Amino acid sequence: MEGFFQVTTVPEAQKKLLEKLQGLTGQKEKVKLNESLGRVLAEDISSPLEIPGFSRSTMDGFAVRSKDTFGASEGLPAYLTVIGEVLMGQRAEYTLGPQEAVKIATGGMLPKKSDGVVMVEYTEKLSAEEIGIVKAIAPGENIVLPDEDVKKGALVLVTGSVLRAQELGVLSGMGILEVEVYQKPKVGIISTGDEVVAPEEEPKPGQVRDINSYTLFGLVKERGGEPTLYGIIPDVFESVQDTVKRALIEQDMVIITGGSSVGTRDVTAKVIDSLGGPGVLVHGVSVKPGKPTILGVAEKKPIFGLPGHPVSAMVIFDLFITPVMNQLQAGIEVLKRSKVKAKLSRNMASGSGREDYVRVKLIEKGGELWAEPILGKSGLISTMVKAEGMFKISLDKEGLSAGEWVNVYLF
Amino acid sequence: MEGFFQVTTVPEAQKKLLEKLQGLTGQKEKVKLNESLGRVLAEDISSPLEIPGFSRSTMDGFAVRSKDTFGASEGLPAYLTVIGEVLMGQRAEYTLGPQEAVKIATGGMLPKKSDGVVMVEYTEKLSAEEIGIVKAIAPGENIVLPDEDVKKGALVLVTGSVLRAQELGVLSGMGILEVEVYQKPKVGIISTGDEVVAPEEEPKPGQVRDINSYTLFGLVKERGGEPTLYGIIPDVFESVQDTVKRALIEQDMVIITGGSSVGTRDVTAKVIDSLGGPGVLVHGVSVKPGKPTILGVAEKKPIFGLPGHPVSAMVIFDLFITPVMNQLQAGIEVLKRSKVKAKLSRNMASGSGREDYVRVKLIEKGGELWAEPILGKSGLISTMVKAEGMFKISLDKEGLSAGEWVNVYLF
Repeated sequence: MEGFFQVTTVPEAQKKLLEKLQGLTGQKEKVKLNESLGRVLAEDISSPLEIPGFSRSTMDGFAVRSKDTFGASEGLPAYLTVIGEVLMGQRAEYTLGPQEAVKIATGGMLPKKSDGVVMVEYTEKLSAEEIGIVKAIAPGENIVLPDEDVKKGALVLVTGSVLRAQELGVLSGMGILEVEVYQKPKVGIISTGDEVVAPEEEPKPGQVRDINSYTLFGLVKERGGEPTLYGIIPDVFESVQDTVKRALIEQDMVIITGGSSVGTRDVTAKVIDSLGGPGVLVHGVSVKPGKPTILGVAEKKPIFGLPGHPVSAMVIFDLFITPVMNQLQAGIEVLKRSKVKAKLSRNMASGSGREDYVRVKLIEKGGELWAEPILGKSGLISTMVKAEGMFKISLDKEGLSAGEWVNVYLF
Repeated sequence: MEGFFQVTTVPEAQKKLLEKLQGLTGQKEKVKLNESLGRVLAEDISSPLEIPGFSRSTMDGFAVRSKDTFGASEGLPAYLTVIGEVLMGQRAEYTLGPQEAVKIATGGMLPKKSDGVVMVEYTEKLSAEEIGIVKAIAPGENIVLPDEDVKKGALVLVTGSVLRAQELGVLSGMGILEVEVYQKPKVGIISTGDEVVAPEEEPKPGQVRDINSYTLFGLVKERGGEPTLYGIIPDVFESVQDTVKRALIEQDMVIITGGSSVGTRDVTAKVIDSLGGPGVLVHGVSVKPGKPTILGVAEKKPIFGLPGHPVSAMVIFDLFITPVMNQLQAGIEVLKRSKVKAKLSRNMASGSGREDYVRVKLIEKGGELWAEPILGKSGLISTMVKAEGMFKISLDKEGLSAGEWVNVYLF
């Protein structure tokens, strides 16, 4: 019996890793507004000006002094003299006197002394210069005040905001066309395993094409990171060490994947331990799939030894790598995964003291959502293609019964 | 009273638009695998080969003939002769005879006549060439068959699949490094309104910076499209017509935004009607916010006249533009928006015969999720920055009471 390891629970393993990464923060960079969608803001943004900046009509109609409309009704209209029209995008040069009105369109600038707009629907044209108002307005009605949308100096966006469409809109409205965001976490992906060949090669007997590199490439991208593939490295200490050393310089974190055999795991662990402290922190996690996981830190950067099975790699990725990627972006969960409640379609056994992650399809049946486990070995990528989501059987459970509610994380 | 329009309900308006767009499908293009994440597959993909392609061990241990282990136990081990070791990535040259075993690592190729693997944990080394097996295995145990992951010719992915990390993985495993996907829907965004200036300009009194262009740019991108900004066009028939004509040639659909005034709406409608049939289909929708919406079709491409208020524009975008963008990508909802159930924190009135969309913040209170409406005029982009989601008050309701459950769509 060789190469055995002491397994650690998921929460313990997460704690061990994150403790060593305390204080780790992401780099910042300036990006143009049209490149900023989905990025995490690395600065607080206060408005340099008030928006809209002037009193604005929100309706098509007539700018008036509201008191001139008080008491107006269908039966007893208020009669006003139209002294002109506000042109869109122009300063309103008028000042309203008593019983005066100015024609105005939605978005137009209110003339001086006007404090409201009567909708065109509530007016009647009596002559070229006279209108009747058939409904009174309150002061401030149908207008937006100069700083009603955004006050000058107001804190509009804070560090850690994920920039959505509307944030791009408000930034452009303030004239801010470049923002400081966190750099996308740079993740190096190293594939090992003497049986693995590049996807562009023809595998010989005993060889398989690399599945994990592209799977991990996709996971990193989906979670807002910048993946770099280092190719397939022979399962030899020096080769792996050279590549990890280079990746540690170029990347924020490094993933070594491909080997689930004891030999490969040993090489991975030895390489991590050879690069300066603290080295390997966790070797083996009580989770299924994903037990043969290695977590380490060197040069203050995390190194992850992921199981070769693609499904295991995906589970472990979100348990350990995603949190570190988030930490580098102000602790923000960049990819918010949806969650649905569904009823489990069959009994599922699990080992106590171990977290189980079960792939499922979702099926609507009798007006209810059911989670149907996809059975299959964790080495099979085809099971992940069929899966719509995953749920967890927690550490303290020995299984779940058919009909129990589970929280399914969609992907 | 001028420029009035007959409003249409949301479902009617959607129907009118989609009827005229029947048969509209997206263009296809080939992309490299590393550019394909999140794209919608435009071809069915069958596997050109079986995966893994040979019988493979899923454990570190010894490849055996399972019948040689039958009855083995701690007390009565089965004794086998180790005739060699399978090297990773190499063809297994051995053929097992009775009571013979070959050392094998996870991922290794099974020797001939072997039908299972005994985990190293259930073996004891007796000499350089002899091991004891302390636990029997069933035929097929701890191995994957040559076509267990993917059968040759099996339909692995179908048209309309959104490519996730695992799809990239399975494609690379099949050696497929280029796929046919739907082109991102190309959406032209034209901003109008004489009061609107570009974000990089300093607004004069009566002018505001363009908010909608960047908001719509973000919405198109988030939903998997390719936005092009055509800038701010003067509110004059010929200028708008010229730009829309050009955009109709270059894009899959065109959005005109910026004007909520009757004058601007009239220009938009006239332009849409001037470009060949069928022209304007809907002018005014019974929805709040977003009533002054124009839907039209020309040159078999949809043209959307969106209200100038940014919040209205966002609501209308998802009601009418997103479905067309999806139609161009095999009818697939590219951006799956999460939905949560929450309790409404206050009474909300609504007009019967009208759909209302209410922006909310989500608040956890007493172990329950509450949706707190963000009140504010639909012209205010700041209310969208504060909003975490939106819920709908449907056509037939006159409002909702505090404490009622609502479905909040997150954004």
